[in-house]
Amino acid sequence: MYTIGIDLGGTNIVAAVVNEKYEIIAKAKTPTAMPRTPEEIFDDIAKVSKQAVVEAGLSLDDISSIGLGTPGTVNNEIIEYANNLGFDHIPAVKMIKERLGDIPVYVENDANCAALGEAFAGCGNGCKNFVAVTLGTGVGSGIIVDGKLVTGVNSAGAECGHTVIVVDGAPCTCGRKGCWEAYASATALINQTKAAMEAHPDSIMHELAAEEGKVSGRTAFDAMRKKDAVGVAVVDAYIKYVAAGLTNLVNIFQPEILCIGGGICNEGETLLRPLRRYVEAERYSIYSKVQTKLMKAELGNDAGIIGAAILYTVK
Amino acid sequence: MYTIGIDLGGTNIVAAVVNEKYEIIAKAKTPTAMPRTPEEIFDDIAKVSKQAVVEAGLSLDDISSIGLGTPGTVNNEIIEYANNLGFDHIPAVKMIKERLGDIPVYVENDANCAALGEAFAGCGNGCKNFVAVTLGTGVGSGIIVDGKLVTGVNSAGAECGHTVIVVDGAPCTCGRKGCWEAYASATALINQTKAAMEAHPDSIMHELAAEEGKVSGRTAFDAMRKKDAVGVAVVDAYIKYVAAGLTNLVNIFQPEILCIGGGICNEGETLLRPLRRYVEAERYSIYSKVQTKLMKAELGNDAGIIGAAILYTVK
Repeated sequence: MYTIGIDLGGTNIVAAVVNEKYEIIAKAKTPTAMPRTPEEIFDDIAKVSKQAVVEAGLSLDDISSIGLGTPGTVNNEIIEYANNLGFDHIPAVKMIKERLGDIPVYVENDANCAALGEAFAGCGNGCKNFVAVTLGTGVGSGIIVDGKLVTGVNSAGAECGHTVIVVDGAPCTCGRKGCWEAYASATALINQTKAAMEAHPDSIMHELAAEEGKVSGRTAFDAMRKKDAVGVAVVDAYIKYVAAGLTNLVNIFQPEILCIGGGICNEGETLLRPLRRYVEAERYSIYSKVQTKLMKAELGNDAGIIGAAILYTVK
Repeated sequence: MYTIGIDLGGTNIVAAVVNEKYEIIAKAKTPTAMPRTPEEIFDDIAKVSKQAVVEAGLSLDDISSIGLGTPGTVNNEIIEYANNLGFDHIPAVKMIKERLGDIPVYVENDANCAALGEAFAGCGNGCKNFVAVTLGTGVGSGIIVDGKLVTGVNSAGAECGHTVIVVDGAPCTCGRKGCWEAYASATALINQTKAAMEAHPDSIMHELAAEEGKVSGRTAFDAMRKKDAVGVAVVDAYIKYVAAGLTNLVNIFQPEILCIGGGICNEGETLLRPLRRYVEAERYSIYSKVQTKLMKAELGNDAGIIGAAILYTVK
């Protein structure tokens, strides 16, 4: 049995054929090339899907279902709203079937697809109570309870990045003040690093940033490794904020696995070890024999496409 | 069809017979009278259950299932740990069956039972995506997603009161700093009121507290109604903290209904109207047609006992 997973992003449209072991066996992609009409975008979705099928040495008759991961809010068969694609009430399932035939089609938010991919084919290893957090430009998340995605009555749920951890704190892009995203995203870390550099013209971080050509999410971590006190302070504060939100999620969901992804996670155990210490000290479940495992995401950019391909398992 | 719901509390053990319309048709209670052994407590659970059945004009043969709501951590048939009852790995299902016969028995944490009762028989009116929050001595919560209780892998989940909303904030009984409970419980409101009274010896709150014989969760609200500026400031700040946590839950769960209970809710629309304003302004789902409804709990102390009686619907 083979399925197609499609990752519709603001930059690229990627389609993959996935086998029943949740492995990608062929892939094709094309630039999204915005601005374009929804019709043009769905024509390209069909084109790369067919290319991936040919690449896999198969035909569309071998495909048992198609899954599409998209930014924005998805309500069953409709993409209600996706700002960066200019989508407003797009009948995605119908538009795919018109182009690829009467195959079962499922649509879901891309962060939810990524969580599903990691839970079933990545670090989750098939577990059914799973929370995935991505520390990237923002803080994304996807939640699986009893094997089902938590999406809420309006499919706008699982926005854990937009939970306030500092009342009256730093402004967030969403309009609230003090969201987790405003403290724990890579963007936030870069801002925290820049602020510390401005306050400490003697920090080695100036040198490191000059070498790299910019201040990045790595600057403070690299400075810490070189024993720079300011770098250590930035990393310590950042980890405290990340841990506060992670512990909140543990206390709400007590998932089997809490998975962290995104660029910052390339720090590996440098990041995970202190996070585990915080969570272990602060979680409410001190008397429980079973505890949430904190793990690093395994699938990288493939999580979303594999998750889209296996949407049939949760719909 | 009739079922028995039992509410095992630190003060009283209450049993009720509930019909298939989720209505209580008979009730019996006895003091918990701690300290006692688990055997003595379960003897009394059986005694009040039989009394309620007799009171209802029925016999145990008419009872199709029994549900027990208990403080502490429940793992399937076992109460793993309940501090105020001195319970450590108590085989609750077995102990009830030994005393009341081979009837299906279900056990669940009392806050989860209360959420279930409100969702199915109270303000939730049967809805399947529901979050209940109780603003009492602490901040309790129960979460229902797709008609099932969210309990986590170790049954210690749904502790929304122990999510940090102010990193490095006020100390919480759980050991963390800045938990929602430390700002939004009735206990917290009383502490906030006392602090404001100390800072403002001229506030009318001194007079109101003297009349009532103590500072209570009502003192600041009563002062606000009398246009006392300090009372207004205490209530405004308290509502902001309550709203921060509620909006966090909306952004995570986007439930059909978010229900608030506990003594503070006797303030009714005085509390709910400004809370709705905050949540509407801050929720992430600004583009969604369907939005979470914020409602007041309807069942009071009966929520837990009705929820226990209908555990069979979700197990």
